[in-house]
Amino acid sequence: MDTVIKNGTIVTASETYKADIGIQGGQVSLIGKDVEGDEVIDADGLYVLPGGVDVHTHMELPVGETKSSDDFVSGTVAAACGGTTTIVDFADQERGLSIHEVLEKRLGRAQGRAVIDFGLHVSITDANASVLEDEMPALVKEGIASFKVYLAYPGRYMVDDESLFMVLLKTREIGALVLVHAENGQVVDYLIQRHLSEGKTSPLWHARSRPAEAEAEATGRAIALAALAEAPIYIVHVTCRGSLEKVREARQRGELAFAETCTSYLLCTEENYSLPAFEGAKYIVSPPLRQRADQEALWRALASGDLQVVSTDHCPFNFMGQKELGRDDFSLIPSGMPGVETRLPLLYHFGVNEGRLSINRFVELVATNPARLMGLYPQKGSVTVGADADLVIFDPRKQVRLRHENLHMNVDYSPYEDVTVRGYPVRTISRGKTIVVDGAFVGGQGDGQFLRRKPFVP
Amino acid sequence: MDTVIKNGTIVTASETYKADIGIQGGQVSLIGKDVEGDEVIDADGLYVLPGGVDVHTHMELPVGETKSSDDFVSGTVAAACGGTTTIVDFADQERGLSIHEVLEKRLGRAQGRAVIDFGLHVSITDANASVLEDEMPALVKEGIASFKVYLAYPGRYMVDDESLFMVLLKTREIGALVLVHAENGQVVDYLIQRHLSEGKTSPLWHARSRPAEAEAEATGRAIALAALAEAPIYIVHVTCRGSLEKVREARQRGELAFAETCTSYLLCTEENYSLPAFEGAKYIVSPPLRQRADQEALWRALASGDLQVVSTDHCPFNFMGQKELGRDDFSLIPSGMPGVETRLPLLYHFGVNEGRLSINRFVELVATNPARLMGLYPQKGSVTVGADADLVIFDPRKQVRLRHENLHMNVDYSPYEDVTVRGYPVRTISRGKTIVVDGAFVGGQGDGQFLRRKPFVP
Amino acid sequence: MDTVIKNGTIVTASETYKADIGIQGGQVSLIGKDVEGDEVIDADGLYVLPGGVDVHTHMELPVGETKSSDDFVSGTVAAACGGTTTIVDFADQERGLSIHEVLEKRLGRAQGRAVIDFGLHVSITDANASVLEDEMPALVKEGIASFKVYLAYPGRYMVDDESLFMVLLKTREIGALVLVHAENGQVVDYLIQRHLSEGKTSPLWHARSRPAEAEAEATGRAIALAALAEAPIYIVHVTCRGSLEKVREARQRGELAFAETCTSYLLCTEENYSLPAFEGAKYIVSPPLRQRADQEALWRALASGDLQVVSTDHCPFNFMGQKELGRDDFSLIPSGMPGVETRLPLLYHFGVNEGRLSINRFVELVATNPARLMGLYPQKGSVTVGADADLVIFDPRKQVRLRHENLHMNVDYSPYEDVTVRGYPVRTISRGKTIVVDGAFVGGQGDGQFLRRKPFVP
Amino acid sequence: MDTVIKNGTIVTASETYKADIGIQGGQVSLIGKDVEGDEVIDADGLYVLPGGVDVHTHMELPVGETKSSDDFVSGTVAAACGGTTTIVDFADQERGLSIHEVLEKRLGRAQGRAVIDFGLHVSITDANASVLEDEMPALVKEGIASFKVYLAYPGRYMVDDESLFMVLLKTREIGALVLVHAENGQVVDYLIQRHLSEGKTSPLWHARSRPAEAEAEATGRAIALAALAEAPIYIVHVTCRGSLEKVREARQRGELAFAETCTSYLLCTEENYSLPAFEGAKYIVSPPLRQRADQEALWRALASGDLQVVSTDHCPFNFMGQKELGRDDFSLIPSGMPGVETRLPLLYHFGVNEGRLSINRFVELVATNPARLMGLYPQKGSVTVGADADLVIFDPRKQVRLRHENLHMNVDYSPYEDVTVRGYPVRTISRGKTIVVDGAFVGGQGDGQFLRRKPFVP
Repeated sequence: MDTVIKNGTIVTASETYKADIGIQGGQVSLIGKDVEGDEVIDADGLYVLPGGVDVHTHMELPVGETKSSDDFVSGTVAAACGGTTTIVDFADQERGLSIHEVLEKRLGRAQGRAVIDFGLHVSITDANASVLEDEMPALVKEGIASFKVYLAYPGRYMVDDESLFMVLLKTREIGALVLVHAENGQVVDYLIQRHLSEGKTSPLWHARSRPAEAEAEATGRAIALAALAEAPIYIVHVTCRGSLEKVREARQRGELAFAETCTSYLLCTEENYSLPAFEGAKYIVSPPLRQRADQEALWRALASGDLQVVSTDHCPFNFMGQKELGRDDFSLIPSGMPGVETRLPLLYHFGVNEGRLSINRFVELVATNPARLMGLYPQKGSVTVGADADLVIFDPRKQVRLRHENLHMNVDYSPYEDVTVRGYPVRTISRGKTIVVDGAFVGGQGDGQFLRRKPFVP
Repeated sequence: MDTVIKNGTIVTASETYKADIGIQGGQVSLIGKDVEGDEVIDADGLYVLPGGVDVHTHMELPVGETKSSDDFVSGTVAAACGGTTTIVDFADQERGLSIHEVLEKRLGRAQGRAVIDFGLHVSITDANASVLEDEMPALVKEGIASFKVYLAYPGRYMVDDESLFMVLLKTREIGALVLVHAENGQVVDYLIQRHLSEGKTSPLWHARSRPAEAEAEATGRAIALAALAEAPIYIVHVTCRGSLEKVREARQRGELAFAETCTSYLLCTEENYSLPAFEGAKYIVSPPLRQRADQEALWRALASGDLQVVSTDHCPFNFMGQKELGRDDFSLIPSGMPGVETRLPLLYHFGVNEGRLSINRFVELVATNPARLMGLYPQKGSVTVGADADLVIFDPRKQVRLRHENLHMNVDYSPYEDVTVRGYPVRTISRGKTIVVDGAFVGGQGDGQFLRRKPFVP
Repeated sequence: MDTVIKNGTIVTASETYKADIGIQGGQVSLIGKDVEGDEVIDADGLYVLPGGVDVHTHMELPVGETKSSDDFVSGTVAAACGGTTTIVDFADQERGLSIHEVLEKRLGRAQGRAVIDFGLHVSITDANASVLEDEMPALVKEGIASFKVYLAYPGRYMVDDESLFMVLLKTREIGALVLVHAENGQVVDYLIQRHLSEGKTSPLWHARSRPAEAEAEATGRAIALAALAEAPIYIVHVTCRGSLEKVREARQRGELAFAETCTSYLLCTEENYSLPAFEGAKYIVSPPLRQRADQEALWRALASGDLQVVSTDHCPFNFMGQKELGRDDFSLIPSGMPGVETRLPLLYHFGVNEGRLSINRFVELVATNPARLMGLYPQKGSVTVGADADLVIFDPRKQVRLRHENLHMNVDYSPYEDVTVRGYPVRTISRGKTIVVDGAFVGGQGDGQFLRRKPFVP
Repeated sequence: MDTVIKNGTIVTASETYKADIGIQGGQVSLIGKDVEGDEVIDADGLYVLPGGVDVHTHMELPVGETKSSDDFVSGTVAAACGGTTTIVDFADQERGLSIHEVLEKRLGRAQGRAVIDFGLHVSITDANASVLEDEMPALVKEGIASFKVYLAYPGRYMVDDESLFMVLLKTREIGALVLVHAENGQVVDYLIQRHLSEGKTSPLWHARSRPAEAEAEATGRAIALAALAEAPIYIVHVTCRGSLEKVREARQRGELAFAETCTSYLLCTEENYSLPAFEGAKYIVSPPLRQRADQEALWRALASGDLQVVSTDHCPFNFMGQKELGRDDFSLIPSGMPGVETRLPLLYHFGVNEGRLSINRFVELVATNPARLMGLYPQKGSVTVGADADLVIFDPRKQVRLRHENLHMNVDYSPYEDVTVRGYPVRTISRGKTIVVDGAFVGGQGDGQFLRRKPFVP
């Protein structure tokens, strides 16, 4: 073996057991007792997990005049430091460019720069005949097996119901998965305009303009159209009880409805928007943060299986210079929160330590399920022979006080500043190579590879 | 007393008792034992009910090149013969005309012609600022306290979610009720086009193009927007379990969500579309007929209170010359079924006789509730002192075999041909004056008055 | 007419209208405009309601060494003063006596003493063959059409599931209704013993020993057995969300499940048990008071129809000398609260004035529905020609500050001391005779008649 | 390595991958590529699964005058031939014996005879103080971490609610799990007696005497008491929609409610009871077989996670000489069906081949979950380093026509006679030793060991 991780406790989505892991050629090659290898990593007293898979990130995303503050370098270094070894980011259809062109543009930003492996979803904003008939099937063949549509942001991203329906029908045919941002864009935009016209410009009004009912409605609509199209569907960033109910009902009817929530919704609430000194802006995200009762419902849904994935929707903006753009108008605050680095520690601490999730369910939520749903399994998301040796050595006793200055995301604040978590990655391994040790990045820029993902299989 | 109805059993939404009714000046003036009057009508062994109130009819409605086959004369004569003494029909906003103008046009058709009292809803297809700010408030003052919007028929009637939301916000402010035709128009029109392009042109494909899920989705959406607007809402022609579930959930949350179904959905099923010789066209209606399990759910919802009104959506077209227009293309079949005359007998027979509804609930569904919700109570819908003497003397033992040639609707078929019902009106009284006796119309053309309805009060 | 009530606004379960009421021979004889009579009562600006029907009271009920502090005189005077003109109390099967004997005993206490009409339910504690085969059918013929069973109080009242099932099967056959006290007696008694053995003796532990889950379980069980027996069932004093859910589900399945709640559960909460100076004992009742969220659910269920009746379970004990018996042991506190006098004012004030109930629904809950379900309709519970002239003239503007010294119940405290309600009866009429005027009882002891009730009809 | 299984596809509850398995000292020692060993088993093209764990069997169970027809020899040979390597059977408390004594008696039957490893549950029928305070805690220490109680069979096994509650409270304290047979015994026995007295003696009346409502009621009751006791609970043999609903609701409230169904309920229906020539007796089992809609609900619940385990309730009786005892009285038909041998093939064929279950979920249901819940994990139920090498080599293409003469269970019929399944075990390995090859048992009588199970951990 090239490398052997000895004496660790391996944790997968269903099992927890002590064994050594032998790595050869960047893959897990042997799991057993007394495995020998050239390089020996001692994991005594530590967990060995599959590397995290974050299927919802936005690196260097242009938003209005600015863009999200992590590029593919800083963002993936941060991901790796937090125990994530795969991300799936987005290429958004642009007016005047073919999807192939925007994909190339986006690949140009990521390739040679990302430090961990990455995939791309494609966002469709104009479901014209060429997109449906030519580009989508071609993309699936090139390893892009998931398409995102927005029911929010009319005029920018929003598609109408017919477009959503046609995309769903097409994905069913070609083996892809539709990701839906579910908020009723017309209602939301109406409320934004009304609130602004009434002089209600502070961050709290961001939340008041994007009510939970508008999310639940759009979630129900998307699921209904998917059921009609007999196509699978994946609702991104579910935040509230109403949306959960729609997802649960669909699953109980036997429909292929999947959904994620994000760490922010599990840990922060609407109350944050009323923080003094414009601090509420740090928590502006869409859909917005909700109430404590919603949080509790989300945690229960993670445990029961109604939600299948925890991702981050990582989309950071600096408070200084970026979030500040909306001091006088909440609608100008760039929407997004940092998270790619803290997902595993936060979910472990507040989920596993608090008794809300078993450690196996934790692994399933952050690695195995996202890999499966996005066509990356078993290459990613799993500690099994033949899988990529994307591994995280995790110390369940290590306590870390989160401070943005110690984190690696390129953003001037943390929503969890001074929160102390117990349980933290102490080593991250990507395709057999150690890239983070004790919080220090030791990998190489551009070592991350583009992942051609497999078609969706129910 | 001008007139006294002696020895009958009075039935209201909550009571059943024997008493005489004295009528003076067109109103109920006295209820009691041994009431005397100039004209005496013996109702021994018969029920005396409040006249039926049908809040969903379409007389002489232009549809494409044709129009519905009952005008305000024949349609209201038929209504009266079936025990209905009030209808509420529609004035639809037209491009190039103010709402006031279409209202005048429509009043011009009805006034001087209708034989029973009538009101009008206004359908809004363009919720522009002038409509919202000026016309709607003015209309409520003129006795038009209800506005209909369509979520179906894009390009013709359909409004988008923002328009629906603005109309809801406005009605809340001015005391009106929004009626919603809830089907997802974009999905439906996509399916129509696809089916036609695949050569699927027979009546059954009408139903396949308007699936229950598309209705349930739109129902849920309308209710969600009403909840956000904190406005009451009334879903017209609910046909399926999915829609019922949305209505029920809203009501259990304490929202002001109301809904009707129509006799057709209670008594006919999707199987009718497969009748030979193009007979399925007789049952083309939108939303379409559904399955037996939906029927059972509708009946249970009438009994439990989840549905509050039974109306007809009366909109007849002759089979010869009208329905036939769509022989080669189901989308050209004018959509609508006759019903205004048979509502009470059918609901009584299949509801009360079959043990599904108490006779009080029957009265509540066909008279009291529709009058209340549409601002007509207590003038209409009730047998109480001071109410209009709109009364129906109903013989629970009278058996009638329904045949279109014996009915008074101007249409060349009946969906219930040869069905025998037990229980039928034997006399209809409008504001104290007998207008139908034993199936013969004896009233006067134009005796019906336009009803200025009261604002909606929760 | 003997008497005429002029100018009042008559309110029934479905209608509200202005008319005069003529009374002849103790019955409502004429309703109309300008009715004349010997005695004229002016009700201008006032409501005229059907007299209240309280189907759950316990006058002079023996409990351990003591008995409830109202006898049939004081209790029915208080009822009349609060606008209730009919009660249905209980005769409990006793070891060593035939049911006929206990019924005679109980009639002996009530006849010649009660000031308003009254009926009796029979409680069955030993469902032996003679009871099932002989006594129950005979009782129905004598006007006892309802039987109560307890799932609580093992050793005293509790019946096992087989007995409940046999009683249900029998009632279905003979046309009666089973009333169920639904708490899991074995669990409750176990908890009582455990808490006492742990030295937990204060009133709060009464509530902790009778958890909502134990009520919901027994409610679900009783309803399941009724469904199996295809018999109607009536759950007394529903207090919590869990029980409501069972009732609602049964009704949605179309089962004949009915339920009442009591004023105490609508207005008081578990917090009362922690009042200082043993004051919590005043609120000891079984099932116990619950939480605010349960209250809200009860109110919503009254509005939606999931609950059909508001009664009182009136069973007062003086604080001094009676409630005090349990100072050192909550299980010795006699269980029950006063309520028969304040039911209408409290439900009107907190229901109608607060916008939770329409005034028609209020009438339905306190008079029409209980009369219907207990075989008293239309003689009681209704303002219709031919009904008993049991009427309440109710002043919606009259404000009364409730104080036990001004109330007529024979008990030394009020749970609502110093609460001010708006809306109060100003005159109570029993079979045409005024028995209360402005809070003063002017009727005659023993004027109340025993009511032979009709068999239950679905 | 002592043994190596080469080229197989390993399937666990969460993963599917190709690797070799090295076995040393009866345990899985190495999983990887190119593992070498003394004995080589080629599994190319085959699945390697964890051995099945059947936690609900009744070998040589005395029932009336007879006993179930498989003893611990024949029954465990059959289990092994069907791919099951662990069973958990029962020791039932007997009047006059301590639990320790019945346990010894039962161990005496199994030890030295069973050919695969086995555990024992203890059934409690008299929850006296000595049982609760002394025996139960001692048993948990001896490896008996689960106790069964019956809510059916009054007079024989049934416990009352207080006993169930006390057992639940105790198990919570000592770390054990309560298994509940949930049918309302009093209602069932009443119906049995009534039907027999009415001359209804054929097998169908077995089902009519044990209605689904009686099961759903008892399931809801047991779950409610567990929630009150804050104890975990495990419902055995769930058969119907009503019971499922109770389990699902509890799990959504976050309660520790678990449930199994059995192969019979997934594959046979009530219609079988009407087979001619008394053949219905072959399907007599308690609870009885249900309807097709229940089956569909059970399958969906297996997929969604609402049900966690598939076991067999294996309890065979010969048609000749045993089932026949009830020819004239269904209540004398010994209740039980054979199943221990066919569980894996049937669930694989009708579950995985039919697309209802993923193969990972299949493994979870038949091996991993039962092992976990019964304190056997990770020793059993898993293919992981350090686990017992209890493995099944499964050929997904092997077709077998089931015939009782070819199966190994000691019973003269099969409920699945002539059903052809695709997918069958071709080799069974127990602690590293091959005990079945291609349907031939090659192991040794008495090689099975008693399993001391671990306390229940949530």
